[in-house]
Amino acid sequence: MTISSVLKKRVRYAPYLERLVQPQDLVPLFRTGQNLGWSGFTGVGAPKVVPQVLADHVAANSLQGQLRFNLFVGASAGPEESRWAELDMISRRSPHQVGKPISRAINDGRIQFFDKHLSMFPQDLTYGFYTRERPAGAPILDYAIIEATAIKEDGSIVPGPSVGASPEFVAVADKVILEVNTATPSFEGMHDIDMPINPPHRPPYPYMSVDQRNGLDSIPIDPSKVVAIVESTQRDIVPPNTVADDASRAIASHLIGFLEHEVTCGRLPANLHPLQSGIGNIANAVIEGLSSASFKNLTVWTEVLQDSFLDLFENGSLDYATATSIRLTEPGFRRFFDNWDEYSKKLCLRSQVVSNNPELIRRLGVIAMNTPVEVDIYAHANSTNVSGSRMLNGLGGSADFLRNAKLSIMHTPAARPSKTDPTGISTIVPMASHVDQTEHDLDIVVTDQGLADLRGLSPTERAREIINHCAHPDYKPILTDYLDRAEFYARKHKCLHEPHILKNAHKFHINLAEKGTMKVDSWD
Amino acid sequence: MTISSVLKKRVRYAPYLERLVQPQDLVPLFRTGQNLGWSGFTGVGAPKVVPQVLADHVAANSLQGQLRFNLFVGASAGPEESRWAELDMISRRSPHQVGKPISRAINDGRIQFFDKHLSMFPQDLTYGFYTRERPAGAPILDYAIIEATAIKEDGSIVPGPSVGASPEFVAVADKVILEVNTATPSFEGMHDIDMPINPPHRPPYPYMSVDQRNGLDSIPIDPSKVVAIVESTQRDIVPPNTVADDASRAIASHLIGFLEHEVTCGRLPANLHPLQSGIGNIANAVIEGLSSASFKNLTVWTEVLQDSFLDLFENGSLDYATATSIRLTEPGFRRFFDNWDEYSKKLCLRSQVVSNNPELIRRLGVIAMNTPVEVDIYAHANSTNVSGSRMLNGLGGSADFLRNAKLSIMHTPAARPSKTDPTGISTIVPMASHVDQTEHDLDIVVTDQGLADLRGLSPTERAREIINHCAHPDYKPILTDYLDRAEFYARKHKCLHEPHILKNAHKFHINLAEKGTMKVDSWD
Repeated sequence: MTISSVLKKRVRYAPYLERLVQPQDLVPLFRTGQNLGWSGFTGVGAPKVVPQVLADHVAANSLQGQLRFNLFVGASAGPEESRWAELDMISRRSPHQVGKPISRAINDGRIQFFDKHLSMFPQDLTYGFYTRERPAGAPILDYAIIEATAIKEDGSIVPGPSVGASPEFVAVADKVILEVNTATPSFEGMHDIDMPINPPHRPPYPYMSVDQRNGLDSIPIDPSKVVAIVESTQRDIVPPNTVADDASRAIASHLIGFLEHEVTCGRLPANLHPLQSGIGNIANAVIEGLSSASFKNLTVWTEVLQDSFLDLFENGSLDYATATSIRLTEPGFRRFFDNWDEYSKKLCLRSQVVSNNPELIRRLGVIAMNTPVEVDIYAHANSTNVSGSRMLNGLGGSADFLRNAKLSIMHTPAARPSKTDPTGISTIVPMASHVDQTEHDLDIVVTDQGLADLRGLSPTERAREIINHCAHPDYKPILTDYLDRAEFYARKHKCLHEPHILKNAHKFHINLAEKGTMKVDSWD
Repeated sequence: MTISSVLKKRVRYAPYLERLVQPQDLVPLFRTGQNLGWSGFTGVGAPKVVPQVLADHVAANSLQGQLRFNLFVGASAGPEESRWAELDMISRRSPHQVGKPISRAINDGRIQFFDKHLSMFPQDLTYGFYTRERPAGAPILDYAIIEATAIKEDGSIVPGPSVGASPEFVAVADKVILEVNTATPSFEGMHDIDMPINPPHRPPYPYMSVDQRNGLDSIPIDPSKVVAIVESTQRDIVPPNTVADDASRAIASHLIGFLEHEVTCGRLPANLHPLQSGIGNIANAVIEGLSSASFKNLTVWTEVLQDSFLDLFENGSLDYATATSIRLTEPGFRRFFDNWDEYSKKLCLRSQVVSNNPELIRRLGVIAMNTPVEVDIYAHANSTNVSGSRMLNGLGGSADFLRNAKLSIMHTPAARPSKTDPTGISTIVPMASHVDQTEHDLDIVVTDQGLADLRGLSPTERAREIINHCAHPDYKPILTDYLDRAEFYARKHKCLHEPHILKNAHKFHINLAEKGTMKVDSWD
């Protein structure tokens, strides 16, 4: 095969170039039932070319349902996994996914999906926990398909815009296929990699600040594992960011007022602590809000960096940011690469085991901010399953951060529209229909209506605080009524710690299913 | 005051002896509304004399309800806190408690109680999170009352059989009262103390093995904080251990078979990993079972050590154990002190922030074993609130361990008696009435009926595994029926990830309340 000059420049370990193939040559390697690990996290840095030729192969030969894989990705891959779901090529999936076709397949029962804390999934995979049915000595992954933006002289892999679980996939895969992406500039120098070391030999992670680096800027690999490389010329495509609206700006404003208050009271330093923030319009509004507030020398220890962080850098508020993925839009990536010299000093990408590690989140005192499906009056939160059952995307890193952060914050609009009622869904409910974050994990709940500070409160105190400060006015009387009745019942039955009437606890959700709104008009 | 010779020997910092008082002299120091921190953990090492004179004072002067405190103890104190509850001397309590009078007061709404992860409670206290209503600069604790078994030359405190949250209490208390216990032998040399260091300056904990020590064998203190010392001649009284019964032995047998299997498959080393185990007859049966199995060179990283661990030491299976509390019966303590030279080399007590720290539990690959109130078919567990509302003891360290362990195990009998039905309560339920541990946290559920290995399974797979292996035969058909119906419903509504019928999800509990048994005979 002829080797493009740009590829030759990117691949500095010559023996790999001898393994360069056309992607379609790889099709015969794949058999139904194999365990595959893909690089990628939040839709960037995933393999594209090999998944596509496999999908084309299935589509062209009508092999739907006959070539099915157990697919592991650090979090979500790109549109390729949706196409695989459409072609019934995924039998099992973990630990996170994004895309209508794939969540549809999960909720139709065609894909067996389990979501796991993103910090834990890669280590549990290396323990062999997810491949227990295989005979002893069999590989955990048959293939890891890893996107690289460069290969170093020792054959080690320089990832692209995400590290995710690639270090673990590479460590436990029988064979590795590399997609060297020459359309994306090389990310060399942007990563700080920790390879997995399992108990009883695991050492402390040394990091005491967000900018501390351990030294490995690529993923080491035994080159004999690499059975093929292909060139990829497809960039990641990230949809435009959802813009802040009035509700998200109101949430951000409550939150920033709170952070300022904490600084005044001496419970936070003037530059706060490292921030973690999710994806979506509320997260963006908060970052925008921080950008226009007076905070200086901020730092970020998070899972995913988005365009909004570039603004924080550019206005001088943000000193350093680290994550496992940098998910930028096309204009964002342009800004990023145009200022590479600047950003490469202020940014680093780590494995998801490190970015989401309880040890580090707790040590650094991270301020964690996430959006739930719903929160109940006692501060249990649902991050995953609508009305208890319908999977959205998965747990992600929400619980890694919310359990271990110094300040654990859930932000959400107080109400969302249902099909027939503009405020038909209250995000504050009597009892969460599914619990991913417990009452022991949340410090702050904030909606467009206000902020509830739950630290040190008993459950009944929390309930009043949440209803009074966070609930939408349409639901305040209904929730108060539930709580009053539950307290009355619990006083009689001597269970006043966390009063519930179990037969009414999910009435909001049942009402929504039956009448299109959570506005319960009778408890009977 | 005359100073007993034994006290003089224990208190090696002379200025404290000048502050020796009779306990009743301290009564005027206490005012309603004060924040108090007591040493103690799982009923040992708590102050006794000062709480008693205060209780006597309240009882003698009919001051019930007029002298009320915010009481913080690492976990549970001794019978003194029950007496305080009876005398209405506790307005707020955290993070754990044991004793009928105190749980009664919580469930009657007379005590505002919140339970918090035991690893987090002390740090959040030092952050000032629980005393937000106090003016800036006001102390977090007005008094810490700390039991010591010796005082070193620098005035530092040698605790007794528990460390708990004493390091943090001493660090944030305005004033400290020491109870030097001369009835208990000195525990000097048994502790390894880490004092709190908060972000952004917190370093890694260095421990890479259970026996690694950091060097501080006492709690450092500014001696000017110590306003008084009293002598205590009251030993801790620990009730006899609940003995293993058939069900707990069956559970232990399933569990030990599983651990042996994991060793065979290479997922655990021959000496396992450090073990964490709770309190109660199942925990004792498991330890007894380990004792008669062929495991050697075991280690323990846990919260509380009990008598059963002495057997493990004595038969040569156990190399080293560390915890935050050693809760021995009178004969147990005798064995312990008779072999002090041996045990002091094989044991150490740490602060609860360290014994329960996510960082260390995860690094060491701990095998965590706990008993829940109930587990649901998708592997959410309730550790605290009976039928969703009635508080038992609190979360304790269950979630610290179960979230971060390499293997997270819940063990429970499959059924318990209700008032009218010997198997009226199923511990496997359709939906947990309260969630403390999520589906993302548990690997193994084991009952006297069998063991469910949930690693890598989707929720519906987990449900079949739990029902088939763990449910009591009386409940297997009822749970299967629920799951079948939920799957039927979810197929129609396209929410097959984690099928539930919300109006029936708590039917077991409602049936129990109405009919005295969870044996649901109709879903309508």
